[in-house]
Amino acid sequence: MGNTVKRLAILGSTGSIGQQTLEVVRALPHRFQVVGLAAGKNIDLLAKQINEFKPRFVYYQDKKARLANAEYQLLPLEEIASHPQVDTVVIATSGKAGLTPTLAAVKAGKNVALANKEPLVMAGEIITNEAKLNGAQILPIDSEHSAIWQCLRGETRSAAQLILTASGGPFRHYSPAQLDKITAEDALRHPTWQMGRKVTIDSATLMNKGLEVIEAHWLFDIPINNIRVLIHPQSFIHSMVEFIDGSVKAQLSCPDMRLPIQYALSYPERLPNPQLPRLDWNNIKDLSFEQPDFDTFPCLKLAIEAGKQGGTCPAALCAADEVAVELFLSQRIKFTDIARLVERTLEEHEAKAHPTLEEIMAADTWAREKARQLISGDNLW
Amino acid sequence: MGNTVKRLAILGSTGSIGQQTLEVVRALPHRFQVVGLAAGKNIDLLAKQINEFKPRFVYYQDKKARLANAEYQLLPLEEIASHPQVDTVVIATSGKAGLTPTLAAVKAGKNVALANKEPLVMAGEIITNEAKLNGAQILPIDSEHSAIWQCLRGETRSAAQLILTASGGPFRHYSPAQLDKITAEDALRHPTWQMGRKVTIDSATLMNKGLEVIEAHWLFDIPINNIRVLIHPQSFIHSMVEFIDGSVKAQLSCPDMRLPIQYALSYPERLPNPQLPRLDWNNIKDLSFEQPDFDTFPCLKLAIEAGKQGGTCPAALCAADEVAVELFLSQRIKFTDIARLVERTLEEHEAKAHPTLEEIMAADTWAREKARQLISGDNLW
Repeated sequence: MGNTVKRLAILGSTGSIGQQTLEVVRALPHRFQVVGLAAGKNIDLLAKQINEFKPRFVYYQDKKARLANAEYQLLPLEEIASHPQVDTVVIATSGKAGLTPTLAAVKAGKNVALANKEPLVMAGEIITNEAKLNGAQILPIDSEHSAIWQCLRGETRSAAQLILTASGGPFRHYSPAQLDKITAEDALRHPTWQMGRKVTIDSATLMNKGLEVIEAHWLFDIPINNIRVLIHPQSFIHSMVEFIDGSVKAQLSCPDMRLPIQYALSYPERLPNPQLPRLDWNNIKDLSFEQPDFDTFPCLKLAIEAGKQGGTCPAALCAADEVAVELFLSQRIKFTDIARLVERTLEEHEAKAHPTLEEIMAADTWAREKARQLISGDNLW
Repeated sequence: MGNTVKRLAILGSTGSIGQQTLEVVRALPHRFQVVGLAAGKNIDLLAKQINEFKPRFVYYQDKKARLANAEYQLLPLEEIASHPQVDTVVIATSGKAGLTPTLAAVKAGKNVALANKEPLVMAGEIITNEAKLNGAQILPIDSEHSAIWQCLRGETRSAAQLILTASGGPFRHYSPAQLDKITAEDALRHPTWQMGRKVTIDSATLMNKGLEVIEAHWLFDIPINNIRVLIHPQSFIHSMVEFIDGSVKAQLSCPDMRLPIQYALSYPERLPNPQLPRLDWNNIKDLSFEQPDFDTFPCLKLAIEAGKQGGTCPAALCAADEVAVELFLSQRIKFTDIARLVERTLEEHEAKAHPTLEEIMAADTWAREKARQLISGDNLW
């Protein structure tokens, strides 16, 4: 490998993961070069990033915006993701926005550092097949999947069980009555991680953990029945793998997304980076564990069930959840209604097995409409 | 690798590790074949083992014993360890008895599954050099070193720190006054592991952990300054590795020596074995950690210091400790005298750097005599 410079395209560069990716690049400028940046509507921050990193290719969603003095080429997301001058594509978008760029990158045989859950949750079969076909490597950035990937390193298909850890969210021991009263403001305060709004709510409902189960299934080619969730409030162990001989490996670190980001970018190397915090064993007294409460947090169960059913179910789940979270954040529904709305939508979904991309997109559209329709009528509540 | 049958020679087959090795062979008879067995004085058990496993080569220490109806060849330990018909040599002897067979196996380019600490502690430089020279692989059986080895699997020289966990022994929170009153009987009851008498006492004084630090230094080519000891009373995490990027990997399992034994024998494969217990995450609530108390358990410090000084110091340490433990078990000295006797012996030791095997053996003899002499005179107490 030597000290080659990897050329990165960062899609979603103004979001939380995008910004932290740029922090890693800043810390290791001799190893990484930013050749592409893409953002949604945060044009001010994007302009600063362009100024600092001088990418060759740029995309932004806001059609009205015009960035001055620009010495770059404006390209669609998919073209940046598959450009010959790009080695690794960081998918740091949110929601389904990452799906088609991920597919484009995978088809172009790129290394795809994936922070966005929806691409694999919605279209895991298509993306992993295309990756195999085109020699693309999917490098997980989620701390849980990075942990599993690190634990599997050097092992030869001998995993018996994946153990995804979860902080349990800020409402871990709440009663259903307490959960009913949670406001958007309450839910946006996550105890451990700094994340975007949608992911923070998904963390609080444990939907996020359910999506991670589906994602892990595709990333590591393990049946969903062999993936379990374990609550670990301190968030030092990011996940574990149990092997067929009963041995378990765990990956631990401070809760800081820059480590899994850097690992995905530097893989197969590990690089020293003094900015990354170290676990301080003088102060870690206890790591504790408990079982997830599927009754109080039904989103976890819904997601795992959708994953087991497969086909278009996970896409419908994601779409219904996105609508439900928006409605909760705009104070139209209660925290506990998120799961009810997702459940009711899935009940009416007619799933298709081994769907095409078009069928996945159709399921997405259908579920969004269905969720909105359910909420506007009297039939749900 | 395929389903090849590995041919094993088990030196020390009637001891705790030897017997557990045979349990692994019994569970996986299609993968392992016993071609050599060697024991000390437990002739009755050895006879049963010979009858069951029908080895081609046998050694026993007791010159007066004669095993009837034997269809095997009696050979010296070193010849069994280096015999062309042996693939993997399990060194399950105790004390310095394993040193010359280990060296013979390594010189013959064998896989050496090593449970006996003294060979590497006393002659780590010689053994690891010979292993490199002859393409021999040293496969650790100690649970701590197996854990580190598993965590390092697939990683490329990127370890920053090894974290050896320790149960802390049965006297973890004892005061010096309480330690003074410990009897041999108290000390032989270890909370977690079933082991031989010498190792059990070494566990209680933490000498064992210190020897493991020295062993880890040689096994993984890591400076002793980059190896730390962490008390973890539940003994589920068997050790950890911190990498240069701050990521930490840990290996966990039930405290059962058959797992590290099997891993060493089956490496690089992992094999399913229904007899091996699995961690039950429904019942694991807490993993706790604390710093070792070097003042109350001076043997740990003495061993680490001897490791740092190197040369013949670790051999002298081992020898003095063996004498001290014997004296404690025969109620000639107190528990706390073990460390004092080792310390006084080392104070008088004139260390040789990069010693030959003869110089190591001479240091061993010198330290035994010195320890006995110190105890018989008035100058120590």
